[in-house]
Order: sequence, then structure tokens, then C-alpha cells
Amino acid sequence: MAQAPIGSSEFDRDTAVVPRAAGTHDVRVSAGWTLFGAANGGYLLATAARALGDTLPHPHPHPFTITAHYLSVTRPGPAVVRSQVVRTGRTLSTGQASLFQTAPDGTETERLRVLATYGDLDALDGDIRTTAKPPSIPPYEHCVGGTPEGFGDDGFLSRIDLRLDPATAGWAVGRPGGGSEMRGWFGFADGRDPDPYSLLLAADALPPTPFDLGMSGWVPTVELTVHLRRRPAPGPLRISVVTRNLASGFLEEDGEIWDAEDRLVAQSRQLARLRDRT
Amino acid sequence: MAQAPIGSSEFDRDTAVVPRAAGTHDVRVSAGWTLFGAANGGYLLATAARALGDTLPHPHPHPFTITAHYLSVTRPGPAVVRSQVVRTGRTLSTGQASLFQTAPDGTETERLRVLATYGDLDALDGDIRTTAKPPSIPPYEHCVGGTPEGFGDDGFLSRIDLRLDPATAGWAVGRPGGGSEMRGWFGFADGRDPDPYSLLLAADALPPTPFDLGMSGWVPTVELTVHLRRRPAPGPLRISVVTRNLASGFLEEDGEIWDAEDRLVAQSRQLARLRDRT
Repeated sequence: MAQAPIGSSEFDRDTAVVPRAAGTHDVRVSAGWTLFGAANGGYLLATAARALGDTLPHPHPHPFTITAHYLSVTRPGPAVVRSQVVRTGRTLSTGQASLFQTAPDGTETERLRVLATYGDLDALDGDIRTTAKPPSIPPYEHCVGGTPEGFGDDGFLSRIDLRLDPATAGWAVGRPGGGSEMRGWFGFADGRDPDPYSLLLAADALPPTPFDLGMSGWVPTVELTVHLRRRPAPGPLRISVVTRNLASGFLEEDGEIWDAEDRLVAQSRQLARLRDRT
Repeated sequence: MAQAPIGSSEFDRDTAVVPRAAGTHDVRVSAGWTLFGAANGGYLLATAARALGDTLPHPHPHPFTITAHYLSVTRPGPAVVRSQVVRTGRTLSTGQASLFQTAPDGTETERLRVLATYGDLDALDGDIRTTAKPPSIPPYEHCVGGTPEGFGDDGFLSRIDLRLDPATAGWAVGRPGGGSEMRGWFGFADGRDPDPYSLLLAADALPPTPFDLGMSGWVPTVELTVHLRRRPAPGPLRISVVTRNLASGFLEEDGEIWDAEDRLVAQSRQLARLRDRT
């Protein structure tokens, strides 16, 4: 398949926002990015971030740090994002956005609320003192893809090209490894290269770490925060997610996204909630 | 000194919020919690969190996940916190708050905006599967306290009882260690035990990690997110802060707060900005 260019790929089409008025954007939540009928949190974050980015000053097009609180499940269909400027500065601007869906009776229900500070990733200098190292993941050809049993034919897994490190994929064939990490290669099924907005999707693209402890079922995200630290180079991403504090039904998932040039382009942390307490 | 009880200590007095109307609380930003004339970010977070907690349903008194974006410097003096309920649920509720200060001409300037989801830490069960381990820090008696040269007589350092691991304190005597970590023991000077709100202060209480690289000067926080995961036991806290991605003038600081029972009671991450680029 020819590689879909950034700007006219499935991801761009399905995260597109249409301005209706100042601070108001219409969106269509696509069934193509759902899991078990619910829109993926990273997909929603990317969509809301596009709308907020359009509302904020255009010299600051990229969320440097963005937090979303997920309030209720978002299903495919129309939605509206209402955003506002909080503060504009010379190099950073802060804003807030909410995504709503309308019930049959006309009432709007807020699905997620976002608070973020934007800047310009292309204005960053090259003084890199990162001490973190890329995760050890086998080559793409030795990682495992496909749709595990029970994941049905939801759109999400067919939109992305996800290959998991076998060491973190035993659960998919009934042999959970007993760890609390997930690692893999991430790309888009249509070959689109990564860009800052797609990193927001990637930050919530891997299976929940409790799967490798043999848990199953939904692990809803309460809050997700992503730091975008660098524009990703073209090519596949490597993603590592680690949980170290699974306790009392809640867990953190710390994500790192590395690009093809071995740069740590994004860091994420989410607070998620176990529904399966076995 | 007799130990100040939770509820009537310096910290409680200086983070007190006075309800003025629904969703409106008056606060007094104390000079006792400033560094270089600016109110400490954790102190502000704790104060705003108290106001928001009073606005949210009282069955959900503790921020489980709270994010603040710092918009402009807060100086000692009066302030107002305006908060709102975003969503109430059975076990979690979400809200938002903004702290404003009024200029001589009467205009209000927003200093920080907060988005948070609250629950009840005392309703959590004891199913602890934490794999993280407490940091290795020498005993309190072997850690270093005091006010480093150049820190003047700002209030903050005299309100807390902070003892740094010597391995991360060389910078304070002109011999930076070259690492990007800070570790130490944390308590209050008046002996107050920790509680959920004081963890928010503790999350921003250690010196910035770039100090151990020999950098000096202000390292302002752009955004701070804290996950409160457990009510801390009485006694001193151990705090570890690690930076692994200092790049292009920005850095993350990942904090862990451990209580006297070796529980990981809070996790934090902030995005901070270097002003000193040497």
C-alpha cells in the first residue's frame, strides 16, 4: 500500500475538526478508532488537541504538556469541542477544551476535559541531554501483531500497525508473562508517518499492562497526561509502557515513545482503573 | 518543639481557604512558603486543592489525580480560588479550579489553573501489588539539611524539615555530583505529620534536579501532575525525584513519595523549564 501522507491519512481524516464559531469545533468520532465500542482515549485526545490548537495562537501549534480527564464513554458519532484560551505568552500558551456529545433529548454530556500548554516544537534547540535509553525491543519482524481472540472487529486494531514484543505478548495466546510492562512497534496501517498529534494517539495505543498479569476486561483511563518533547522523525515508533504501582484497584501506566532516530519524543503517564479485580 | 497536629499547623494555617460564595474561596498566599519571592508550586497546588475539595462532593475529599498549569508568578498576598464541578460520580468526581490575584487597578490575573479528579483514599482496599521499591537514602541523621548559600531567608526552607541524600547534595557546597536526581527526607519544621494535602506540597519541595548538574537559577514549573495513591502513615516521608529527559531547555521531574510504612503514597511528574542554559 502506498504510504498515506501526513494530512490526508485515515488518522487525519478521523481527527479532523471543523470550526463552527470561535472556540467551537465540530468533530465526528469515528468507529474506526474504537475498542469494545468506546472511542480510544488517545484518539479523543488527539482530536480535542487539534481543536484546542486551532483556538490557541498559531505560533504555538503543539501541545507541550496536555492532560485529559475522561468523564464518560465516547461512542462513534457527532461531537463538539468547545475550547478557550487561558493565557498567551511569548513562547507558550495555555488553553482548555471539552468534548461534548448530544443525547437524543438534546442535552450535552461532557466526555472529556483537557488542560494543556502549547508551544512550537520546531523552535526547540538541539541541546539534548537525555539520559534515558530506548527500550530493548526485538526487531519488528520478530514482534507479534494481529488481533487477539476476543477483540472482535473493532476498528482500532485495524487502523494501527502494532507489533508487540513477544516478552509482553504472552497474554494474547493465553500465557501471560506475569510482568507489568508492554512494549512494541507502532505505526499506522496506511503507512502515515508520525507527527506531534499522532503521538497523542500512540500514548494510549498499547494494551493495558494488567493483561500480562492475566487480567482481562476494561481498564478505563481516569486521566492521561502527555509531554510532547520533540517532533518525531519519519518511520516507526517504539513504545514502552511500565506499571510499578498497581494498588487498590488503580494503576499508573508510564509511557515512553521513541522515534526512528532514537529520540525520546514523548512521555506519558495515565491513571487507570481496574474493573477486573481477580 | 511539640508536634503540631494536622489541622492546626503552619501548613494548615497557610493553606486555609475561606468560602465566600458557592465555588469561591478566599486565600492568603503566605510569605512563609516562597522561594526567591515566588510562592512554591506545591504550596499553591495544596491551597487550590483544598478549595476545589470543598466545592466537590464531600464523599470525595482527596485528589486522586490533580494537574496544575502555572501561568504567572504568585506573590504573597490575598488571592481567590474559583472552582467548579465538572462531573460527579459514585466513586470519583472531577472538578476544576483557578487561583487569581488582583492587581492594584482591580484586574484579576490567573496564576494557576487546576484540573483534578477526586475520590476517597480511605475507601481504597488493601490489594497492594506495587512492584516499585523505596529509594535508597541514608538515614535521616546522615542526610544534609540547612539553607544553601544564596537561598537567603525566604520562608519555604524554614517551614520544612528537608534533609538531602549527600549523594544528591554536593551542589549545595559547590561540588555538583553530575547526576540528575534529588533524594531526601521530608517533614514539616513544626512536626506536623503528613496527610493527603501535604503530599501535594511535598511533590514540589525538593531542589530542581539540574542543580546537581551545576546549573543554578530558577527552574519554573510549567505543569505539575500528582497522583495521590494512599493516605500516608504518620512519620517522615522519603522523596525521590529523577530527570531522564533534559532536552532543549525543558525537563521532566518524576517524583515518588514514600511513607514511613514503605508505601508509595504519591507519584508526581512535572514539566519544568530551564532559564539557565549553561
